[in-house]
Formats: sequence, structure tokens, C-alpha cells
Amino acid sequence: MKESYLEKKIYYHDTDCGGVVYYANYLKYLEEARTVLFSERGIEITECVQKGTNFVVAHVDIDYKAPAHYGDKIRIISRIEKLGKSSIYFYQEVKKDESVLIKAIVVLACVGLNLKPKSMPEEMRKSLEEES
Amino acid sequence: MKESYLEKKIYYHDTDCGGVVYYANYLKYLEEARTVLFSERGIEITECVQKGTNFVVAHVDIDYKAPAHYGDKIRIISRIEKLGKSSIYFYQEVKKDESVLIKAIVVLACVGLNLKPKSMPEEMRKSLEEES
Amino acid sequence: MKESYLEKKIYYHDTDCGGVVYYANYLKYLEEARTVLFSERGIEITECVQKGTNFVVAHVDIDYKAPAHYGDKIRIISRIEKLGKSSIYFYQEVKKDESVLIKAIVVLACVGLNLKPKSMPEEMRKSLEEES
Amino acid sequence: MKESYLEKKIYYHDTDCGGVVYYANYLKYLEEARTVLFSERGIEITECVQKGTNFVVAHVDIDYKAPAHYGDKIRIISRIEKLGKSSIYFYQEVKKDESVLIKAIVVLACVGLNLKPKSMPEEMRKSLEEES
Repeated sequence: MKESYLEKKIYYHDTDCGGVVYYANYLKYLEEARTVLFSERGIEITECVQKGTNFVVAHVDIDYKAPAHYGDKIRIISRIEKLGKSSIYFYQEVKKDESVLIKAIVVLACVGLNLKPKSMPEEMRKSLEEES
Repeated sequence: MKESYLEKKIYYHDTDCGGVVYYANYLKYLEEARTVLFSERGIEITECVQKGTNFVVAHVDIDYKAPAHYGDKIRIISRIEKLGKSSIYFYQEVKKDESVLIKAIVVLACVGLNLKPKSMPEEMRKSLEEES
Repeated sequence: MKESYLEKKIYYHDTDCGGVVYYANYLKYLEEARTVLFSERGIEITECVQKGTNFVVAHVDIDYKAPAHYGDKIRIISRIEKLGKSSIYFYQEVKKDESVLIKAIVVLACVGLNLKPKSMPEEMRKSLEEES
Repeated sequence: MKESYLEKKIYYHDTDCGGVVYYANYLKYLEEARTVLFSERGIEITECVQKGTNFVVAHVDIDYKAPAHYGDKIRIISRIEKLGKSSIYFYQEVKKDESVLIKAIVVLACVGLNLKPKSMPEEMRKSLEEES
């Protein structure tokens, strides 16, 4: 199962007055990391949209195990767990060194430009299957 | 089971170039809504922190059923599902008129100022039990 | 010069690990407050967009005089300083009680849906002139 | 005048339903870029804070000349224009290829941990003078 990696550094805008990264902001990193995974499989969202296909997040199940702090370097690991007819199940982790900070399952639904569900284009499915 | 309500309006900063509210931003509204629930039960986070107690989000399980758009008025409904020794299970919904946009389970863990888990202070538990 | 007012409460997601509101977030409150001003003058951005007119921020000049903290209640005061042919100059302040936290000049440019500058529709100008 | 550079890619979370980067988000990129400049001159904010010194943004003057879009690669260029006794004047630009999207003057004030203004430590000033 091929994994994708994204390295990020934590800045002030990522954190809150509790002194750690704000819980919603990890979902931004997860979005960035999924984009990297797509891109490494030859899929660019802007091109998909031009061809009438997009993805929306349908479900997130996320465990916050330990916090990241200002100045931390984190790594987001992403892989596809399952490909449905019109959905993609991702497993994503945020790590700092060897510690797992976040574990998440994210389900994307394939939609048309009207945001209605549709089957994933065959070519896209192949790109995702072959390398995942 | 007493519910708390928060009304919000959607602005440009809530949305993304997909034309709808960005998926991470709902977690901000859920935070605001939990704060309202706490406040209605006499619990102010700033006072808790001064007394050495805070909460961190340990888990989120969120279903995105329909999107909110710029200009929408949404309503966040929150209630406590279960009170653990050092955790609180919330059920939260985001609605637009009668449509449910979001359903979420959010688990908060009670922590000391060192962010280590601790039992919820008895007085706080009573405030939450009595009225939830 | 008619002023518009918006009250906001500060939540965790507004702050950073410096313990105060993150400097970029005030620009979100300023957006919300300008929307309130427009709305009080009968102008709804969604309707403008449907008719082919939108606004983009062309310039911001902002003084950070004192910080807002978690739990603070702030008030944003907005008024139009000057109406150009295709631009609007706002003066906006963020106050906590009687203290001024933020002073800002924000210039909006009127654009078509292609984001190119255009003259403000006459009806809109009248709504803004009469009451500002 | 030594310049610092930061490359960024634009994701969904950066944009709004106008189809372009939300105006407040550029201030996040400017923060990141100033951190890079500091770091290249041997100054790490976490270490400063441990020694009792921090910076707050006192003023921003920002021109929005052209928008960035989803998928764009942008470059933030930063340099110090002037060093005051307790303030730093930055000039920062956001470019896409050869186009200037953003021009900004950002003034940071040196503060103690109580957020009151103080003189910049001599060692820090030297690091900034020598290489800027």
C-alpha cells in the first residue's frame, strides 16, 4: 500500500491560546496531504473540476492522541484504505518524530459540479488502484 | 436531555473555492456551541483554567450530510450524551432550517494545565449532570 | 455619518499560542462587520453577485493597539469614509468596552464576476450615499 | 539588503467562495515568511520567548494587487526595511511567477512576556543588522 508524505512546520496561526495546535487545523493539513497523494498518482483537482468531477468530505473520524506545538515539524502520512464506486477511504496520520499525534479516517465522496454524488471516472479509479 | 443552541451566519471567511463552507470550519462552530453549553451550565473555561482544569478534544466523529453556503443562517444544537470520569461525550448537529447538515460526536478529555488527563472536579461534574 | 455595529465573542479558534487573538483574524471580523453595514443599507452580497457585481479588498491599513483575549466580548464599528466611482473607503474599529483595540482603513474595489474593476451600479451607490 | 524567500502552494483552505485566496490568509503567509527571515538570521521565536522577548504585530499596510487561486505556487519575499529601538519594519511581497500579487509593510513591536513594549535585546539587533 503506497503511502504519501507531507512535511509541515507549525506557525503561530496554527495554534490557539491553549498553547497547542487548534483541533480544526489538523483537518487543513490532512487536506493538503490528500492533495499530495492525488498529485503523486497523476490527479490534479483543478483538472478534475474542469472535467466535471470533484470530491467532498463525507466523513471524518479523528483521534487526537498528542498535541503539536509552535515550531514543531510534523509529518502527515496518507494512504488509501478502500476505493468505493463513488468514494475513497483514506487513512491518515500526523507524526512528530516517532510519536503519532493524530490518527484519522477520512471518506471523500465523488461529486459532479452540482455537488451531487456520481461514480468516479474510470481513468481516475485506475490511477488510484494501480499505485495504491 | 437539555440542549443548547447557537445561531451563526456564514461569511466569506467560512467558505472555500468549492463554493461551500470548508470542512474544517464546522469544528470551529462546534467549539463555539460547546462553550455556549458550558456557559449555560455555569462553567466558564477561563475560570476553569485559573483553577487548573481545562479540556482538550480527544476524538471527533463527524458526518457531512449537506453543505452550508455563503449567507446561510445555521443553528448548532449540542447536548451531552455521556459523562465519564474525565471525559465528556457531546452530540452536536448543524442545521439549516429543518435540514441536518452535520452530525458529530465530540469527546473532550479533562486535563490539568500540563495537558495530562485528570478527573473532572466534582463541582463541575454536578453542574453538568444536573442540567444535562 | 451612520455607523454599523457588530458584537462578537472571542473563542479558542480566534487566538494563538501568544495568548491573544491572531492578527489575521481581525480581518475576518472586519469582513463580517462590513457585511452588516451593507445589509443595513439593503445590499446583500449574494444578490449583487447574481447581478454581476462583487467587491474585492484592494487595500488594508490596520493599527493593532491592544490585544483581545479568549472570552472577550468585542464590538466592531464600521462606517463609510468615502465613496469612489468604483471603490468604497471604510473606517473600522474594534473596541472592547471603551478601549480601542484596532483601527483600520479598508478599501474595497467594485469588480465584475471576472474580477476586473467596474463602476458601482447606480442603485447601489445611492443606497450607500443616502444612509452613509 | 538580504532577502528571504518562502514558497507556498495554495490549497482549498486558503480560498473562499469568491474563487480566490481569502484576504486575511495572506497575513498567515507573511507570518511564516518573517519566521523564515528570523530563522535565517539565527533567531528562533521559541528561544526568544524562553528568554523573555517576543514580537507582536503593531501595524500592517497591505496592497492587494492580484489574487492567487487554488493550486497556485506563490513566493513570499521578505526584507527588513528599518530597525527601530523596539520595532522592526518589514517589506514583504507575494509573487506568482513574475507577477506581484501583494505588497505589504508590516511593523513588529518588541514586547516582554507581559506584552508591554521593550527594547530589542542587543544580541538580536546585531543578528538582524549584520545580515539585513
